[in-house]
Amino acid sequence: MASNQPADPIPIAQALIRCPSVTPAEGGALGVMEAVLRPLGFTCTRLPFAEVDNLFARIGTEGPHFCYAGHTDVVPPGETGWSDDPFSGLVRDGVLHGRGACDMKGGIAAFVAGLADFLRANPNPKGSISLLITGDEEGPSINGTAKVLEWMEANGQIPDMALVGEPTSQTMLGDTLKIGRRGSMTARIALHGIQGHSAYPQKADNPIHRLVRVLHRLTAEPLDQGSQWFEPTTLQVTGFDVGNTASNVIPAVARAMVNIRFNDLHSSASLTERIQAALAAEEARADLEVSCSGESFLTEPGAFVDGLQNAIRRATGREAKLDTGGGTSDARFIARYCPVAELGAVGAKLHMVDESAPVAELRDLAVLYRHVLEEFLG
Amino acid sequence: MASNQPADPIPIAQALIRCPSVTPAEGGALGVMEAVLRPLGFTCTRLPFAEVDNLFARIGTEGPHFCYAGHTDVVPPGETGWSDDPFSGLVRDGVLHGRGACDMKGGIAAFVAGLADFLRANPNPKGSISLLITGDEEGPSINGTAKVLEWMEANGQIPDMALVGEPTSQTMLGDTLKIGRRGSMTARIALHGIQGHSAYPQKADNPIHRLVRVLHRLTAEPLDQGSQWFEPTTLQVTGFDVGNTASNVIPAVARAMVNIRFNDLHSSASLTERIQAALAAEEARADLEVSCSGESFLTEPGAFVDGLQNAIRRATGREAKLDTGGGTSDARFIARYCPVAELGAVGAKLHMVDESAPVAELRDLAVLYRHVLEEFLG
Ligand SMILES: [Zn+2]
Ligand SMILES: [Zn+2]
Repeated sequence: MASNQPADPIPIAQALIRCPSVTPAEGGALGVMEAVLRPLGFTCTRLPFAEVDNLFARIGTEGPHFCYAGHTDVVPPGETGWSDDPFSGLVRDGVLHGRGACDMKGGIAAFVAGLADFLRANPNPKGSISLLITGDEEGPSINGTAKVLEWMEANGQIPDMALVGEPTSQTMLGDTLKIGRRGSMTARIALHGIQGHSAYPQKADNPIHRLVRVLHRLTAEPLDQGSQWFEPTTLQVTGFDVGNTASNVIPAVARAMVNIRFNDLHSSASLTERIQAALAAEEARADLEVSCSGESFLTEPGAFVDGLQNAIRRATGREAKLDTGGGTSDARFIARYCPVAELGAVGAKLHMVDESAPVAELRDLAVLYRHVLEEFLG
Repeated sequence: MASNQPADPIPIAQALIRCPSVTPAEGGALGVMEAVLRPLGFTCTRLPFAEVDNLFARIGTEGPHFCYAGHTDVVPPGETGWSDDPFSGLVRDGVLHGRGACDMKGGIAAFVAGLADFLRANPNPKGSISLLITGDEEGPSINGTAKVLEWMEANGQIPDMALVGEPTSQTMLGDTLKIGRRGSMTARIALHGIQGHSAYPQKADNPIHRLVRVLHRLTAEPLDQGSQWFEPTTLQVTGFDVGNTASNVIPAVARAMVNIRFNDLHSSASLTERIQAALAAEEARADLEVSCSGESFLTEPGAFVDGLQNAIRRATGREAKLDTGGGTSDARFIARYCPVAELGAVGAKLHMVDESAPVAELRDLAVLYRHVLEEFLG
């Protein structure tokens, strides 16, 4: 690259898109990352866990340690409907096409391009920079970021701050800075009654009636009205099944599945207690199984968020809205170790057929990431 | 049979039990009936409808016309567990064994024996006697009693009163006289929402939440406290199914099945309206499918019931409790045409493995039926 030209994220993004890295396949994508990062001076460590491969790369050893986190795995393209090969990385009319263009190979390429420009301008940055690149963000998220962080902790590599490059912008690059996420948990209830004949309900105990009352209790009132930085918690019953086909038989068991997206007013433990209380109030004999895919987290506005706001303002002229909406991301794992925020491309085409990202937007994103690095390490 | 001996129901019951007349098979049982009734002077008419055969037999043409209604079909013996061949009609230690011994080949045999004794004592009864014997009581009840009654109406054979010989006694013969039955209906609800992601419920419309509210509304309060002759109506949700396995997906449709056993304060039409009102109150877009297997009916105490009580008192010394409990019987069809009650053996072994009936009880039942005929036609 000519020394006066900014680095271009597009060829890097294309190289990444051409790797068919549908979770958990590495598909060559981490090799592309190493090939780009090593010449910049990064020490690269592959961290395979079970069927997932991951990459930790760092330049420098001093603090402050800034970490960029992302994933090279992508969701499957699906069977049909793509205008082009989903792994072509085709650029047409100023738009980069392919699975991952938006979520988030385009974003990773933009960071690498911004990083290259930053290092060219700052050959001896005042701290260190790392990349935590996982291959298990779109999958079960068990052998990815969480395990890499454990390794980082064991090896003295925990950063002072982290930025996750998920495509979090709403309509314009930098219009949104995600400083937290709601938690997510699923409760599975199996409520036991006593089987019987519908003509003699006094000899039976209808578990459906009890479960209807339990769920009515849980859904009758909102759990909260939201908090300073969060939308209200939502509780959705997503399953209710009995499997009885005989209309005159009161079944023995009724099962429900409840998914809760919760803000910082709750935890999976407090919500589990709430469900247990509803079961107890209806004197329900029930098995309750709770799985939490992430507690809620919040990076309180302060020096880190202010610095990111400054970078966004300088790069785009925009004032980012601080946001905590949407589903879960790997930021929930990082939040246990250091301040973390999420900032990336516009996520309009995320996970869709004909996923794409405008070339100009990815180049603007590279500039934005360079400003972020300058803000903290320049 | 010697002229001073009462007729014995046992050989008739054995002959009937030996016919494998599991619904809808006739199995020779109606042939046995004809073979016994023709010598007594009855005109027998076979009334086959679709795969079901039925028998109408009458002696006399004058009023009052007393009709005895019963069924020779039986429920399947089931695979295992019988001590003897379920179609053996074995008598051991004073007990008649076999499928139908109790429900209701034993009862039919008792009526025929009582009838024979009555006709011997009353060669010219003051009215006429008929038997409506169906082969489709334990099955769908479509091509049995209901169709025979249509034929009877078309042929001027509607009786003035009818007695159904189901095994309605509770613990002692004649302790219970059934003068009505609750109705039974099943409503199937398919409630339509809008599918979506559980993290963004505002973009979806959860049909489970709506259905829980509808069912909570329907089950929160009893429908009534019972009426003069009836137990309270019971409403039981016997099915609730969604079929969704993804915990983060709000499904598009939720389905429930509701079975109602209703007394004379309701009809299937009024209950359907009640369900529709509950759906409307929750602004539910729903498909509602109602099937009614029988409206409730009541034969108000009066001359017919009094006569039956007299006969029971004379034959057994007992005062029968007037009752309307239990499931449905073919009496629901007859009730549209004339006063009807149900009186028969003790139903303890009904539909069970090793179904049986005490020989002495069936002989007592024959005496009871003879007293019934004397009461109305003697
Ligand atoms: Zn992503
Ligand atoms: Zn029966």
